[in-house]
Order: sequence, then structure tokens, then C-alpha cells
Amino acid sequence: MAEALVPRFDERGLLTAVAVHAATGQVLMVAHMNAEALERTLSTRQAHFWSRSRRRLWRKGETSGHGLAVQEVLIDCDQDAVLLKVTPSGPVCHTGAAGCFFRRIGPDGHLEPVSD
Amino acid sequence: MAEALVPRFDERGLLTAVAVHAATGQVLMVAHMNAEALERTLSTRQAHFWSRSRRRLWRKGETSGHGLAVQEVLIDCDQDAVLLKVTPSGPVCHTGAAGCFFRRIGPDGHLEPVSD
Repeated sequence: MAEALVPRFDERGLLTAVAVHAATGQVLMVAHMNAEALERTLSTRQAHFWSRSRRRLWRKGETSGHGLAVQEVLIDCDQDAVLLKVTPSGPVCHTGAAGCFFRRIGPDGHLEPVSD
Repeated sequence: MAEALVPRFDERGLLTAVAVHAATGQVLMVAHMNAEALERTLSTRQAHFWSRSRRRLWRKGETSGHGLAVQEVLIDCDQDAVLLKVTPSGPVCHTGAAGCFFRRIGPDGHLEPVSD
């Protein structure tokens, strides 16, 4: 019998969502999903998130034009985090970078650019 | 001038932490870090997290023996999520799986095993 999807939303009603590039595996961004964002992501195959700062649902790319086409949605062992395998239609980060993790924490505690 | 590390902890005092395999890039697990967990991870180069359910700091592997040696810590654009590139010393998931994302959400909404 197939196991049921029973997401465990946190006290704010949110799951953690990690988007990785479907072709390269690069981690592109981390965001959050409420139940509606998860439902819309699964039904439309375009990534939707819950903005904690703006307190509203958003479709990634609705203003930038750079959406995330969702190839596959994985869920973790305790069903409180999802992993989206996506094909981005442009830079994912609002800074214009391909992904949001473009700096490392260096040995002296300052941030350093990473090349990949 | 190097940019400063100024983590943006959420209202619970937490960052999201994503651990990926340093060699393969596979997303292994998602967890949370408070300031102390981040500091200990950076100073010891072993992944430490904050357990929301147990409400305490833990070093990954302290009971299982399967720790995560941290090769690099990246931080995202708005400094509220970190990406750990790690070398695991054994299975990362408490189920015994290599990583926690071993099921996908299938077209009918049930969970299906993934092979990788």
C-alpha cells in the first residue's frame, strides 16, 4: 500500500522548501510553503511559496518573470520539508545570481564569494 | 571590504540549515540552527542543530555515531538560511537511509520511493 502524504506543518503552518536545479542538483533557494502553496505547486507544477515577510502566497516569478518549473517534489522522512527539483527560467536570486547561496562563511567569519 | 556575517534568525531564533553531500551534492537533510548551533558548527566543523521537538542543541551523530564533517558553510542572500557541504560518516537519516529525501509525491498524491 502506498504511503500517504501527511505534511507536518510547523506552528506557523509552514513547511521548509528547498529548490534544487533538476539538471545540476545545485541548491538554488530555500523558502516556505503553507498548505495552499504546496497544493498549487503540485497542481500547477510551478513553484509557489508563502512569503513570511509579506504574509501572502506568491508564485516564484510572478514579478521577476523567472519562474521555477517543478519536475519532481520529494518529501523528507518526517514530512516537514520538501525538495523541489526545478528548471528555472532565469536567475533565481533577487540579486540576479543564478542561486541564492553565492557566499561562504570564511575562516575569519566574514563572507566570501563562491565561484560555482 | 569583506561583507559581514549577520544571520537573520527568525522569530524563534532559528535559521534553516540544509546539508548536502560535499562530494555528490545530494541533499541529505534539512534542520534548524540557533546562534549557538551555528557557532559550534563553525568552530568545531561538526554539524550542530537546534531540535525544535526536544528543545535543545544537538550534535548530529551524538547518539547515532553518524556525524557530519563540515567542509564549507554557505549562506543565502538574505542570511536566513545556510547550506552545509558535509562528509557524512554513515547514513544521515534516522531511518537508516543515506538521506532523508527518499520519497517523492506521486501524481495521485501518495508517496513513492525514489531510487537515488
